[in-house]
This record gives sequence, C-alpha cells and structure tokens, in this order.
Amino acid sequence: MIVVMLAETPQHHIDAVIARVHDLGFKTNVQVGEEQTVVGLVGSGINQDLADLLASMPGVAKTLRVSKPYKLASKEFHPRPTIIRVADAEIGGKEVVVMAGPCSVETQEQVLRIAEGVRERGAKLLRGGAFKPRTSPYAFRGLGEQGLEFLANAREKTGLGIITEVMTPADVELVGQYTDVFQVGARNMQNYFLLEELGRTSKPVMLKRGPSGSIEEWLLAAEYIMAQGNHEVILCERGIRTFETATRNTFDINAVAYAKQVTHLPVFADPSHATGVRNLVPPMAAAAVAAGADGVIVEVHYDPDNALSDGAQTLNFQQFGQMMDQLRAIAPAVGRTLNPVKV
Amino acid sequence: MIVVMLAETPQHHIDAVIARVHDLGFKTNVQVGEEQTVVGLVGSGINQDLADLLASMPGVAKTLRVSKPYKLASKEFHPRPTIIRVADAEIGGKEVVVMAGPCSVETQEQVLRIAEGVRERGAKLLRGGAFKPRTSPYAFRGLGEQGLEFLANAREKTGLGIITEVMTPADVELVGQYTDVFQVGARNMQNYFLLEELGRTSKPVMLKRGPSGSIEEWLLAAEYIMAQGNHEVILCERGIRTFETATRNTFDINAVAYAKQVTHLPVFADPSHATGVRNLVPPMAAAAVAAGADGVIVEVHYDPDNALSDGAQTLNFQQFGQMMDQLRAIAPAVGRTLNPVKV
Amino acid sequence: MIVVMLAETPQHHIDAVIARVHDLGFKTNVQVGEEQTVVGLVGSGINQDLADLLASMPGVAKTLRVSKPYKLASKEFHPRPTIIRVADAEIGGKEVVVMAGPCSVETQEQVLRIAEGVRERGAKLLRGGAFKPRTSPYAFRGLGEQGLEFLANAREKTGLGIITEVMTPADVELVGQYTDVFQVGARNMQNYFLLEELGRTSKPVMLKRGPSGSIEEWLLAAEYIMAQGNHEVILCERGIRTFETATRNTFDINAVAYAKQVTHLPVFADPSHATGVRNLVPPMAAAAVAAGADGVIVEVHYDPDNALSDGAQTLNFQQFGQMMDQLRAIAPAVGRTLNPVKV
Amino acid sequence: MIVVMLAETPQHHIDAVIARVHDLGFKTNVQVGEEQTVVGLVGSGINQDLADLLASMPGVAKTLRVSKPYKLASKEFHPRPTIIRVADAEIGGKEVVVMAGPCSVETQEQVLRIAEGVRERGAKLLRGGAFKPRTSPYAFRGLGEQGLEFLANAREKTGLGIITEVMTPADVELVGQYTDVFQVGARNMQNYFLLEELGRTSKPVMLKRGPSGSIEEWLLAAEYIMAQGNHEVILCERGIRTFETATRNTFDINAVAYAKQVTHLPVFADPSHATGVRNLVPPMAAAAVAAGADGVIVEVHYDPDNALSDGAQTLNFQQFGQMMDQLRAIAPAVGRTLNPVKV
Repeated sequence: MIVVMLAETPQHHIDAVIARVHDLGFKTNVQVGEEQTVVGLVGSGINQDLADLLASMPGVAKTLRVSKPYKLASKEFHPRPTIIRVADAEIGGKEVVVMAGPCSVETQEQVLRIAEGVRERGAKLLRGGAFKPRTSPYAFRGLGEQGLEFLANAREKTGLGIITEVMTPADVELVGQYTDVFQVGARNMQNYFLLEELGRTSKPVMLKRGPSGSIEEWLLAAEYIMAQGNHEVILCERGIRTFETATRNTFDINAVAYAKQVTHLPVFADPSHATGVRNLVPPMAAAAVAAGADGVIVEVHYDPDNALSDGAQTLNFQQFGQMMDQLRAIAPAVGRTLNPVKV
Repeated sequence: MIVVMLAETPQHHIDAVIARVHDLGFKTNVQVGEEQTVVGLVGSGINQDLADLLASMPGVAKTLRVSKPYKLASKEFHPRPTIIRVADAEIGGKEVVVMAGPCSVETQEQVLRIAEGVRERGAKLLRGGAFKPRTSPYAFRGLGEQGLEFLANAREKTGLGIITEVMTPADVELVGQYTDVFQVGARNMQNYFLLEELGRTSKPVMLKRGPSGSIEEWLLAAEYIMAQGNHEVILCERGIRTFETATRNTFDINAVAYAKQVTHLPVFADPSHATGVRNLVPPMAAAAVAAGADGVIVEVHYDPDNALSDGAQTLNFQQFGQMMDQLRAIAPAVGRTLNPVKV
Repeated sequence: MIVVMLAETPQHHIDAVIARVHDLGFKTNVQVGEEQTVVGLVGSGINQDLADLLASMPGVAKTLRVSKPYKLASKEFHPRPTIIRVADAEIGGKEVVVMAGPCSVETQEQVLRIAEGVRERGAKLLRGGAFKPRTSPYAFRGLGEQGLEFLANAREKTGLGIITEVMTPADVELVGQYTDVFQVGARNMQNYFLLEELGRTSKPVMLKRGPSGSIEEWLLAAEYIMAQGNHEVILCERGIRTFETATRNTFDINAVAYAKQVTHLPVFADPSHATGVRNLVPPMAAAAVAAGADGVIVEVHYDPDNALSDGAQTLNFQQFGQMMDQLRAIAPAVGRTLNPVKV
Repeated sequence: MIVVMLAETPQHHIDAVIARVHDLGFKTNVQVGEEQTVVGLVGSGINQDLADLLASMPGVAKTLRVSKPYKLASKEFHPRPTIIRVADAEIGGKEVVVMAGPCSVETQEQVLRIAEGVRERGAKLLRGGAFKPRTSPYAFRGLGEQGLEFLANAREKTGLGIITEVMTPADVELVGQYTDVFQVGARNMQNYFLLEELGRTSKPVMLKRGPSGSIEEWLLAAEYIMAQGNHEVILCERGIRTFETATRNTFDINAVAYAKQVTHLPVFADPSHATGVRNLVPPMAAAAVAAGADGVIVEVHYDPDNALSDGAQTLNFQQFGQMMDQLRAIAPAVGRTLNPVKV
C-alpha cells in the first residue's frame, strides 16, 4: 500500500504516519517527489481497514492499494484455467457450454418437455428455479422441494446436468441433495452466510454478479466461497444497473473478457437477465461467445407466453435452436467448440 | 396498466392484444391517437409479469404501469405518518432522533463508554454491530451473541434503546431477544427470506437502502416486511453506487425528501456510510436534517483510530458533540426539535 | 401522453387537469380504474414541457409518454435501413465496415504508413484526429488543418475514405473541405450548435454516444442533425460511464442490438474507447460484430507505445490483422461479409 | 506516479519498465514488496498519457497517480478561499448568495417583474436564459440577444447582478457585453473551446457539473478556464445521472462538501435541475446550505404553470419567499448569513 501525503504538508505529519506504520509492524519506503511525499508499506496483512485508518490521519491525501485483495481467484497466483466437470460437460475448457431451461419449474411434465427440447438442440445442463426471488411480495415464488424433485427426474431421463438457485443458508443442504451446480442469484452476491455455507459443500457454484457489484467485489465473493475449501466457482455476468433504462440491465460484456484475463475461473454470461427482453437474447449470447465466454445460461420454454415468470425474456424452442446454430458458427472463430445437435 | 402499440402496426395485432387482455380477465379502454393506439387495462391483479408478457406480443411498443406496486408503504393509501416508539424516542414524530455508536461491538467497557458518551450528547439509541458483513473473507466479523449481551447491558445502564444488524433469517430469533430495533444492512435489502422473517416479529426494522436499490425497490422491500404484519419499518438512505469515486457512495439526499413525500414511514439517513470519510459526516448529517430526515444514524467511538472497523468514517466524542450542536441549531428551521444535551 | 392521477384524489383535481388539457387544444380520453383515474391526451404537439407542466398540477401522480420523441431516426416510420456510401464502402449494408487509424495525426509519414497498413488488412476508412479533445488543459491537442491535409493525402494514395472529428461549429466548414465523414465526439453528443451546423452539410456524420447519454437522447441527437436535412447519420456506441472502474468505460453492447431494432440508421461500435485498454479491443470488436454492428472503428498505430495519445488502447499492425481475421470468421455467422485481405 | 508490477512477473519486465522511465527523463524509486514490486516515478510532467503508456507494458498490473491533475483549482496550492464580487454580492465569502429567476427570458415585462420579486425576497443575482439548450430539436430555444437586453435592463432597474448561459465560443463576446457572470451549462462542462474562450475573458464563470462528470473532471474543467488567466470560477453542482429515475437527477450533496474541502473556489448548488420537480427544490436548497454551499441558484417565475420552459421545477414567488425564510434560519447554524428581506 502507498500513502500519499498532501503537497506542502508539514514534516511532522509525514513522520507521524511513518511512526504509526512502524507501530503496526510494517516497514516503510519513503519517496520524496517534486510535489509531495509518498510512504510505501511493506509487509503482510495490509487491508482496507488499515487503508481507511491511515487515510484519516492529518496530512494524508489518500492511500492507494497495490496488491489485489483476492488471491485464490487470481490468475497471478494460479495461472492454469479451472475446469469443472458436470455430467458430460467440461466447464472452462475448450467447449462452450450452454445451460438452458425455464425460469421457474412449474410441473414435472413441463420440466421434462423443456429438458428434452434443450438437450436436442445442444444444451448440456438444465436450469430451472424451484426457489424464486421476487422483487414484489405478491408474485409467484416457486415450488420448493417438489421443484427440485422434478429437476432430478429430468436429469435421470435426459442425462443433462442440473443447476438451480439456492437463496438462503438453511436451504443449502436440501438443494445440495438434488442439484449438480448451485446457483447464487445476483441479489445474493454479497450474502456472506450463504457464500460460506456453499464454500463448505463439494459441488460447483455459479456466482451471478450483483447488479451493482464491481468486478473486484464479484471476485472477492468468489474468494469467500473458495476460502472455505470449495474451489469450483463459475462466474456469471448477468447485467449491471446503470442509468440506461431502454434495456432492463446493461450487459457488461467488457467484464466477461476482463474476468477471463484476471482469473482462472470459468466465466459465463446470462443474456436473458442481462437484457430482459427476448429478441435481444440471441445477439447477446452471440456477443458473449465472441468475447470469450466459457458458456451461456438462457431461459427457454415451449410456451413462453404462458410461463409463470419471466416469459418476456424466455426463448421458445425454435428461437433457442436458431441461437444455438449461430453460436455453433461463431465458436470456431474464437477457437472453441459447441455441442453438435443431438437427434 | 397501459399497452402502447407501435405506430402503424396492423389492426390485427391490436385486436390480439385486446383479446389476450380480455382472456386474462381484465377490461380494456382503447384510445386511438394521432400516431398510435394505446390499450388501457382495468381490473385488479395487474403486475410486472403481466406487463412483461404483453410487452413481448407483436406490435407492442411498450407497457406503462399506472399504479404503484406498493400499497402498505404508500402515503396515498395511508396519509398519516407512522410513529414508532423505542425507549423514550418517538421516531417519525416532531423530534429528530439520533442513533449513534461504534461500528463493531468490541468489549463491554468499550460499548458502555461509548453509550454514555453519545447519550450525554443527545443520542436516543445506541447502534453497534455484533454480526458484521465484510466484503473480504479475511476481515473481522464481530463478536456474535456476546456482542448482543454487551449492548443489552449498555441499555440497562444508560436507558438508550439499541439497534443492531441481523444478517440471516436463522439469527432473527436470537437478535430479537436482545435488540429494540433490527437493522437490515444495505446488501440485504432484497434478501427476501430475511425480510419475511422480520415481518413476523413485533419489533421495528430499520431497512437500509441497497447501493443499487431504486427508491421503488426500497419501498417494495418495506412492503415485504409489512405484508407479514409488521408495519414498523424505518427507511434509511445510506448512499448509492454511481460513477463518482471521490466519495465511497453518493448520498442520495433527494431520496430522503422524496421518500417523505410518497410514504408514511419514517426516513433516516446514515451519513457515515453515505460518505465513508469522517470529515464529511457532519455536513451530510446537517444536510439530511435540513432536507427533512426523521433522524440520523452515525458511527461514534472514543478512539476511532483504534476501532476494529470503519475507523475512517467514525467520529470521536468531540466531533459528535459539535455535530449535535449544529443539528440542534438546524432542527427548528425545519420545524423539528432535537434532544437537548444531558449533563 | 397519459396523465395518471393519484389514488383517492378528489374529482375536482381530475376535472382541472381535463380542463387544462382542453384549453391547450388536445382531446382527452378518461379511464377510471380500480384505484385511480388516468387521462389520455390525443393530438399533435405533445412534448416534454407539456408533460412537466401537467405533472406539477395538484392530484397528478405522474405523466407517461406514449409516442417516441424522435421520428426521422425511427424505424417505425422509416422501416428500410439507411445505407451510406463512402469511398468503396456501403455503410449499413451487408458488409461489416472497419474504420481504423491513429488516435492523433502526427506526421504525413505516420499517417501514410498507417493508412497502408490498415488498408492491406481490410479497413475501408482511415480514422485520425487533427483536433483532439483532452480532459486536461495540459495535453497534446492535435495538428489542426495540417493534420487534415495529411489525411487527405493519405486518401489520395490509398483510396481509403477518411473520417475525422470536428469539435466546434466554427470548424465545420474547414473540416468539411477535407473529410468524407464528420465525427462528433462523445462529449459533444449534445452540443446542439455543432449538430445543427452538421445537419446543414451534405456529408455523413458519425455520432458517438455520450458517456451518460441514454439511447433515447442519442437518437434525439441524431434527430437534431436530420431535422436540418442531413439524413446520413451513423450511430457509434463507445462505452458509457457506470460504477465499474476496472475498464475505462462500460461497453453497452445491448445498445448496439437495441439501436438496430429501433432505428434504420447504421450502428457502429468503438471498442478502443469502450475499453481503454488494448487487449480488450479484439474481443469487444468480435462481440460487436456478433451482436449485429454494421462496423467498428478502432485505433491502430505501427508503434503504439510511442503514439502521442491513447497508446494504451491502440493496436499494432499484427494485432489489428489478427482481429480482422477473427471478424472475417465471425461475419458469416451473422449473415454479413467483411472485406478480404488486400495484398 | 506509481507503477505496480504483477506478482511473480519476471525481473526483466521490471527492468524494462525502469529503463523506459529513465529514458523518458524521470528518476525511479523501486520498492520490493512481499508480493510484488512497485516502481515510483519522480519528476515533473507526469500525465495520463504516460500512465496509459506504462500500463500497457508487459508485467505491469496498473499505474496509480499520486498527484492531483489540477493545480490552479486546488486548495493544496492555494489555501485561501476565492471571493468573487458581483454587484453587491461577495460570492465565496461569509454570505450565502442566492441567484434566482426564470428558466427562459420571455418578455421585458416578465423579466422585470421576476427581478423585482426575487430581489425583494433576498436574491442578489438574476438568472435567465436567452440561449437555451434543449434535448429535442423541436423545443423553444430562447430569444437570443434580445433576451440579453431584457436582462440588462432588469439589472439597471433593480441593481441585481445578472447571470446567463453562453453555449458556444462564437457567442462569448456577445454575451459578455451584457452579463455579469457567464454560465456554462452541464452539457458543456467539457466543451473545451468554450472553456478556453471564457478563460480569456475577465468576467466570472459559473461552471455547472456535467451529468456524468466526476468531481475531478469538473475541477479539471475549471482548470481549463483558469489556465487561460481567468481565475474567477464558481463551481455549481446540479445533479448527476445515476440509475435512480424517481427524480430527474441525483443531487450529489457529497460533492458540495467535498469540493469545498479540495478547492478554494466557491461552490454553488442548483436544486431546480438537481431534482426536476418543484416541491423538492426548497428541501434541497436547505440541504445545500446546511452542507456548506456558498449559494444556490433556483428557477423562479410569478406564473410557473405558464412559463415557456421548465415550469415543473420553477417556484412561484410565495414558494421562493418561504424557501428564503428557511435558508435564512439555517445559515447561522453553519456560520453564514443570508441577505435579509428588502421591502
């Protein structure tokens, strides 16, 4: 960490900072510049609280952090990509993996029919919500454990892996009995109790980026999970909140490519939530794959207009099939493959 | 709700929308304009899912919501202000109520000393964190139940009410055995399981606005709590996330005055988190009171530089006393009072 | 426009709004709902000032605009795509058009060498700044007219079209003597004097989206130009300002696909400014083409590390060549072509 | 400036950075930390281009700027507050100065009547737009020079100073013949030609903060003006663009207090544009004064509902008078005065 002193600050303020840093057990490296002095800290255990504390001392202009606050998730320390195996998918490898399915699990028949529809068109995992977070207290909130059973039955019949959301620490054990991959929703990106509970399981976790989560905070949230011992984290960009309201969220495609550069974890994109509207989903899925995403997760239903939730951003089978064909054409241009159609 | 059709869309698209709306059990009111047709819906049960569904039909340009999605929190339906009594404070009444205390509870002695310090200077509630949410998995996270006991002892000695954060549904019962007011942290504004659990208690809840929560979502989160039967919700603005990085958050002072206009619930401000830096806390507390806030909650410690967390945004006793004196001078200018100094 | 009345507002407030609307020469359509009444306006000349005025009347909850504020730029009224011919490029047609060149024009030799380098690799227009906007008053600001001459000479030697920025109305005539396409920089998106002056010329205008410009404001800015008679406007997304600071801007890829849906104008992307960093430029160019952009504009220099400005986001020839090869592979997947390599 | 190297980067990358820095004429200070090495630069002429250039070298994690990019506007180098005298107002001194008037100048009679109305209630400058920036090409754009004459006549009759917007460099001379203070609108905060032209005049300039302008960019824009020799710049916060849409802009009250801490220039607030709605103007004006603003600028009209522009955010005389009374009560609480009522 670097402590920048104000220009023309008296020497005794500089000395006080140096003394304080020494008291705290760090070495210092002082650089006297043209305009101001900077004090570098050397040692381990430098954190935000320390930065804030020094920033509040007299004569200090600001503090600048030098090292990344996350280590386990960082490519600097773990240069090899993490590959996660689920069903017959290798997530984070050469293949672009597609996860697809309904927003909400509604009936056993619905789930099965959708599972078969997306499997035939190349999906490798089935998504579906049994526990649904809803902004309004008056909206449908999912089937709960029955929904998990429906998903598990669909896995048995189709061979697809399954991914479903867990919303609260108390449900981790239950959901873990059924799912292959846990999903952490965007609003829970910083629900630390949930992250830690998931860190103590041995199943992969897809961590959605929060609508106001910085990339650094997203990686720190991954670090929370990893610090408990579970290193199988899949990052998923799903749009951030900005001033633009023409689309539901702003799909931060920069974040997909940037995250691939700084972390070894697989990076996915969720174009359904990133846009909120059906006809933007296929171009945004295409953009994500072109930008280097390891996969996409999309909402698909055989009858989106009668789905119980999120119908407006859900593709029907035909639209999903066309999207998959386009992704199959783009993947080789970026050195990737995509599961061919199964008939 | 209003469905706006595209200009020059064929009549059969308009007819299809009208038919769909009728199928769903609503009446329609069709207005043919100079450029385009709009279809109004009349009936109860209009929600976002319906809006999204209609928005995805051919020929539809967009849907516009007419009624507010929250009712219990709305001043339209409940014009009289909600007043919440805690210890000897009337929150939401004529008095500006100040809650103050350390970021984290550290020791019994620390809590007592701070409680006495803030009580003498006019605070009516003691704040203090026993469970701490931290962005980094490697930071101090609070004393847990022991911290709650320290707070309760301080209440007994000083007569101050206490407020402390609860982070997960499983802790609601425990925290409720000690606290007078539950605090929901900004990152949990949309943790629906937590909100519902709190809705089933009979103690007031301070609901911090999330860093990317719109005012509407904030009021919907209050509605979540109220829909379970607990109507004693205190809203608290604590800064939102924007492009500006010179301050930790952007303190949305508009939101304080706006929320006072649309809801009957008390509205507080947290200038400590809204700014992240000590010397901006007093002017922002002053701004909040001038804008009509029902109170402020601030971090105070007798030795901020050695606090275990958030020291940089914490006031010492002298700074807190000066801030209180200034607030006491401003309150009458906006028709309010503030607890006089106790000696 | 729709005027939404507050729930339980007295009838005389509703009558006053209706009377006011009639006074202003509009017809009304009144819909009495379960909770509240809405008043629809029919007639021409409805604008934001009128909306604001009615919104401030007693009993009015809000006003909702029904029709788009832009007409000339809207696909609703002009469904056929606008194709703009510059040199041998058809902008907005089947071909993905690439514009490339240095941030700043430095010397005749530099411009020529870069022009040849990008032409050989498939670019169809040469970009280069002769007038440079700079955030700091102490930075390099361009060669002015001499820079324009260098660009024109490069056009003569290579056959490339040229595009360069014009920053102020007084320079429009001068720049117009040299350039094929005017560029309006992001900071000038709402410089109305400049837009109008350009609207009176007969050369195409590339309109960069401002860092805080909504898509609607961007299209309204295009409307400013078009309203003066110049309909050849190229929209260019170059990143917006959000809370994320890991990348210089947030590249709003949604906006590229969305703008293609609502307007008939060509839509470009500028991945150099959208990211601010060289190694994100090729994946973001790929994403833009996959999302349906009509072209990209990128910064290229034979020696980026010694460029006078923007070196960090500038590709060298090899990187540009690799990017072009990748775009050539992606274009057919989205039904487009890209200029083959010239040797 | 500090160059932070990646952890575990090979030594030759570090050596290359050091060599490059020496080549460019700077001294270095190398600090080898626990995890990574940082290279400090010492010398003058460090700027953003240099930072970007070094950031793109192999092995570099990032660069961190140490010194502020603005000097003339900085309190570090000029600790004494700048006081600007206009008519009988001392802007930046002990007095809170209020500027008030219509959004647009409409007629001589209108301007005179408003001038007298605001003078009687304590305003010291009259604001009024003769040249109006409008988002839509189809809206009213002001009277031009005739409007300036009306303002000048009102000054003669009332003794108020006048402030009016100038939108383009070509108008600076004309506007300067009439006005006492130039206003630069928010959309022109980075219109560098305009800033420089104003920097060559000898009249004060009120610089509105752009809706997406960071505080640092705002101060750099002030620096643009000051670098030409005109040091009389008044900063004015008028709301920034964020995700929140309940109010037109988000009033960044933090920025008012923060700017007062880092610059010696006077800082104003414009609650009319910061909120966009009349009934939020008085509480936000109160908040601004409580936070330490040197003054406010507000829109006032005797008949806001029939004003040609911005009626919804304009106060009538009675509302303005009440607001002034409240500001008069708050000012002493923050050690300021406000012009007493003139009768």
